[in-house]
Amino acid sequence: MTRDLRPLFDPRSVAILGASSDPAKWGNRLALGALRGEGRRAVYLVNRNGGEILERRAYPSLLELPEPPELVVVTVPETGFEEAVEASLDAGAKALVGITTGLGETGAEGQARERAVVERVREAGAVLLGPNCLGVFDADAELDLGWSELPGGSIGLVSQSGNLALELALLAADYGLGFSRFASLGNQADLEAAELVRELAEHGPTRVIALYCEDFRDGRAFARSAQAAVEAGKPVLLLTPGGSEASTRAALSHTGALVSDSTAVEAACRAAGIQRVATPRELVDLAQASLARNRPRGRRIAVVGDGGGHGIVAADVAVSLGLELPPLSEELSGRIASLLPPAAPTRNPVDFAGAGEQFLTVFEGVTKLLLESGEVDAALLTGYFGGYSDFSDDFRTREIEVAQGMARAVAESGRSLVVQSMYAGSPAVAELREAGIPVFREIEAAATALARLAENAERPPRGVPALPQSAGGPPAGDGYWEARTLLAEAGIEFVRARRVSTREEALAAAAELGFPLVLKALGLLHKSDAGGVALGLADDDQLERALSDMAARLAPDAYSLESMAPLAEGVELIIGCRWDARFGPVALAGLGGVYAELLRDTAVALAPVGAGDAGELLHSLRGAPLFTGARGRPALDFRAAAGVLATVSRVAAEHPEIAEIEINPLLVMPEGALGLDARIVLRKEGGDDAR
Amino acid sequence: MTRDLRPLFDPRSVAILGASSDPAKWGNRLALGALRGEGRRAVYLVNRNGGEILERRAYPSLLELPEPPELVVVTVPETGFEEAVEASLDAGAKALVGITTGLGETGAEGQARERAVVERVREAGAVLLGPNCLGVFDADAELDLGWSELPGGSIGLVSQSGNLALELALLAADYGLGFSRFASLGNQADLEAAELVRELAEHGPTRVIALYCEDFRDGRAFARSAQAAVEAGKPVLLLTPGGSEASTRAALSHTGALVSDSTAVEAACRAAGIQRVATPRELVDLAQASLARNRPRGRRIAVVGDGGGHGIVAADVAVSLGLELPPLSEELSGRIASLLPPAAPTRNPVDFAGAGEQFLTVFEGVTKLLLESGEVDAALLTGYFGGYSDFSDDFRTREIEVAQGMARAVAESGRSLVVQSMYAGSPAVAELREAGIPVFREIEAAATALARLAENAERPPRGVPALPQSAGGPPAGDGYWEARTLLAEAGIEFVRARRVSTREEALAAAAELGFPLVLKALGLLHKSDAGGVALGLADDDQLERALSDMAARLAPDAYSLESMAPLAEGVELIIGCRWDARFGPVALAGLGGVYAELLRDTAVALAPVGAGDAGELLHSLRGAPLFTGARGRPALDFRAAAGVLATVSRVAAEHPEIAEIEINPLLVMPEGALGLDARIVLRKEGGDDAR
Repeated sequence: MTRDLRPLFDPRSVAILGASSDPAKWGNRLALGALRGEGRRAVYLVNRNGGEILERRAYPSLLELPEPPELVVVTVPETGFEEAVEASLDAGAKALVGITTGLGETGAEGQARERAVVERVREAGAVLLGPNCLGVFDADAELDLGWSELPGGSIGLVSQSGNLALELALLAADYGLGFSRFASLGNQADLEAAELVRELAEHGPTRVIALYCEDFRDGRAFARSAQAAVEAGKPVLLLTPGGSEASTRAALSHTGALVSDSTAVEAACRAAGIQRVATPRELVDLAQASLARNRPRGRRIAVVGDGGGHGIVAADVAVSLGLELPPLSEELSGRIASLLPPAAPTRNPVDFAGAGEQFLTVFEGVTKLLLESGEVDAALLTGYFGGYSDFSDDFRTREIEVAQGMARAVAESGRSLVVQSMYAGSPAVAELREAGIPVFREIEAAATALARLAENAERPPRGVPALPQSAGGPPAGDGYWEARTLLAEAGIEFVRARRVSTREEALAAAAELGFPLVLKALGLLHKSDAGGVALGLADDDQLERALSDMAARLAPDAYSLESMAPLAEGVELIIGCRWDARFGPVALAGLGGVYAELLRDTAVALAPVGAGDAGELLHSLRGAPLFTGARGRPALDFRAAAGVLATVSRVAAEHPEIAEIEINPLLVMPEGALGLDARIVLRKEGGDDAR
Repeated sequence: MTRDLRPLFDPRSVAILGASSDPAKWGNRLALGALRGEGRRAVYLVNRNGGEILERRAYPSLLELPEPPELVVVTVPETGFEEAVEASLDAGAKALVGITTGLGETGAEGQARERAVVERVREAGAVLLGPNCLGVFDADAELDLGWSELPGGSIGLVSQSGNLALELALLAADYGLGFSRFASLGNQADLEAAELVRELAEHGPTRVIALYCEDFRDGRAFARSAQAAVEAGKPVLLLTPGGSEASTRAALSHTGALVSDSTAVEAACRAAGIQRVATPRELVDLAQASLARNRPRGRRIAVVGDGGGHGIVAADVAVSLGLELPPLSEELSGRIASLLPPAAPTRNPVDFAGAGEQFLTVFEGVTKLLLESGEVDAALLTGYFGGYSDFSDDFRTREIEVAQGMARAVAESGRSLVVQSMYAGSPAVAELREAGIPVFREIEAAATALARLAENAERPPRGVPALPQSAGGPPAGDGYWEARTLLAEAGIEFVRARRVSTREEALAAAAELGFPLVLKALGLLHKSDAGGVALGLADDDQLERALSDMAARLAPDAYSLESMAPLAEGVELIIGCRWDARFGPVALAGLGGVYAELLRDTAVALAPVGAGDAGELLHSLRGAPLFTGARGRPALDFRAAAGVLATVSRVAAEHPEIAEIEINPLLVMPEGALGLDARIVLRKEGGDDAR
């Protein structure tokens, strides 16, 4: 469904339903903002009391407007919301902005009311932003409904929080950045983040898309929209809750809980090429970096300091963030040295050793040499630049000229220059920013920007996978035996086992499998904790004792009798998939056993995962060196493990009725990978489905 | 040696040797600065050309001054440095500030010249700052030699970089912070960081000590001074190079390289209670936090947002930094709820849900309830506060009153409040800061400040250990056998072994030790890599083959024939100690074997380490859970491992001639710990000794 959002962002006429003369009311701010676009469109202020508002006629109802209002902003009390929407649609509105609060955010009843309203809106071929939203803004269209503090610019912003949007605007202004569009999400009753992002992907003046989002609704659709934007060259930056929810959930324990909502978001970001941030400041820093004239394509940087201390600190920070400072070649180093005093270090970092103050042109000269050398992907200039303008008018003129020279070097080389300046508000810095050179006040911000751009360049979107057809009915049950049956049928090899119910069946199976054996009681959720697993049974005698012990304590329906796996020959993995309410099935891989405790590293991806991506996922684990056979250990069968991950993710994606499925452990051996245990959790409700 | 530094920071008279009328020269800036203190002390400008400078008489030489100058600032060319120092001492100077460059920083010859000068200075009972330094500043003493841009305040600053000091000053000014004293270190020919820090520890107006330091000279003395300051209640914040040097060194490989200069600094910081930072911004943020009226004593915080988005983002950031957000009690939550709208979340984070705008007093009311509850160590307020003043004069008055109310709540409760404000430059924020409430513009800065203060409160200084008497002569050599002999004599248990040279000796030793055995060729630096280790020899035959193979390939002097260790029963550690040129012996512990590869975690401490500290060090390893016997593994002998670490560190500290000593691996078993291999590297020169 691609709908026309032009009436929302650039309406031919707009009506404020609930306009007010009271400066303390949002209806006043909306009216004031709307009137700023009066030169471009008709603006109608509507208030049931009529009279005058802001020196304009206030219409007592929409019925009395001289023309149909294309966009209606509804800021009436909650009790009058439905009536206002009806009236708007009757009057011919094609877009509505619902400011009204007290609906879906208050619970099920409000949500039902919203659903009914949305049905009417869609029937009428209109769109609704909100309700419980704070308005909309379009710089080029001169549409300012509630957001007078937004400077114009290239950032398209979608936010579920008004205060955070305001904070982003204030921080962006420091960098001379502004916004092309802003939409306040509210309850997303009709228009969701996905549709707004898709629109921004095609919106010319928008060059980077920024979001603050708490609820992604159709998360897969959102990820697809974001991927389209990224592939169209518009970075998507996402601020969203994560860590502390995840840690709460993690406290609820068990391995299935390793995939939390936050990791589902992580998987979606990786699939779509979305760059996730944790704070408003990180978002704005990354926005400035993303809008650079040239973005670095790799991690090799040269650090240039006009004093030794700055260069040293910057080099350390850069390296700690994963950037590389290759030693410059003798030739390049020599050419740089010819511009600097004899003692100046020139291998990387480069230190002007006082030359900057004497000859401002060294900034331009050294930068140019570095950017054109091909030896680095980017240069990071740190320190005093920008401050020379304070010395005298002459210094000011020269410093601005040098800034222009650096801008030319960036343009001509196609390489990236990022600057940290103690004087980030100076005219020379403004000149740099004007030319698309990001300038930060703090070295950590500058280095982080470079590191994130490099990382992003290295990791193109994995792609948002399509969900397969649902495969027949649900599995027979959610027990261990059903899980291993389902997965074995899909082609995953498990340790040899027989399902037995009686002593006689057990002894017969034992004769067939051969000792040593493992006995597991079936039908228990936490077999090990309940004492439902007996390892290393060496003969019939031990088997019989284990059987009668479990029968007495646990009275299980049946048992699984299994061969002992060659644990010492391999490494244990946890392979699983969890159905997220918003993002659908999310595949997970992590190290098992003692390593799970120590490393706590897991990797996630939207399911289903192809064998190639599955391999990449496993390689991204911190524990990956365990597979590669260094230090006298044999190499393990990586392909087999990746194949299992791909299969589990496909099975899960084919079974929306499975909330969680997991093989834990999967024993990866020098040849092959063997499931040793498995479990399934079925979904309680059919409800929220990401399809 | 405690010397009187009053003549440096508060001289009765000052002479600028090399004063200049040229505004482009440092001698001009120094003169200008000195004259600002003319109301307090006599200021003499000296220039060999005489005449007038800055409307004052310029004396052609120190001899012509009407009184002995207590402090002389020497800013003459390098060739005249010695003569200027002599003249100053002859004139009676008790303190000298050497601005002159081109001496010790250029190499050995310059360093020799400096040593000669320092000898003269000390003979005369005077002190010298620099040379190659940028001056000195004391706010209370109205002494401003070169640092006109420093605002006055409570931070005592010592820096080896002028530009970084300037950046710190600019960043501090944003928070309304300033400096009590500043000393530019320069080459530290006479006065070192240690002595300056000791002086600041006793300097009343200095409440926090900040350093940028590249070379610590006598590092142990520096650490002792810092510890004294910390124990006197003055936090010491250190910006110093680290990471990238460390990574370079790490690339040089081998485990001994795990202890780099940066880890030596880390060990010193932990011993002295110094808080290390990586950037100027981190330093200034931590300075603001450290100057808070109350510092938090633990990690439990309540997050208060005036909008939901801010509270959520802040909670995530706080948790990711290791802070805890305990759910508030029903009672406290209920009392907070009574101040807020019905739907407002009040369990933690607390969200005002719009109430802030309606009733500014909720800021004060909720803060007071939280701080007085005892349920949290600190409250973190995030969002819009500070912005209400923009609404109207009335709001401004009320917002300032509310800020005062919050300040009272902090004062009366003794608890800590940290604020993040989008409007950090507002009058209400200034009011908060005035009352010792730290206010940051970014949420990550506010949360990091709280996390670091909490961490610091949890880790009192370990103490800088005294070095023991040197123990006899150096070890017999630097081979494996000498290392294990030295350590075994100190009481460390090693795997049973016999030193053998011939086939006959080997067979006899084998009969005594019993198979299986290990054969190691002695006298090789990297035995394993050279094929000088044969494991799992099962009988005389295999032993003889291994002997003749090694004899043919490596022709070693001798062999060590050893029992096979029960590797599967334990965990391997690396235990070592390295003599750092600045900080002396530094002990290291880390996981060995495959875990070393995966976890790369090591812990360091200044040696010698007591058994208690050694245990704490091992517990701080990420791999520590391997010792505790969870998940069916046996608990390992932690005390034995700690004992070995303590012994190795003592042996190293008693042998300054040992550059590196290491047991790798040390096998820690359920009972006892067994050295399996060891090595020593002797120091090449006797030179740099941290004693």
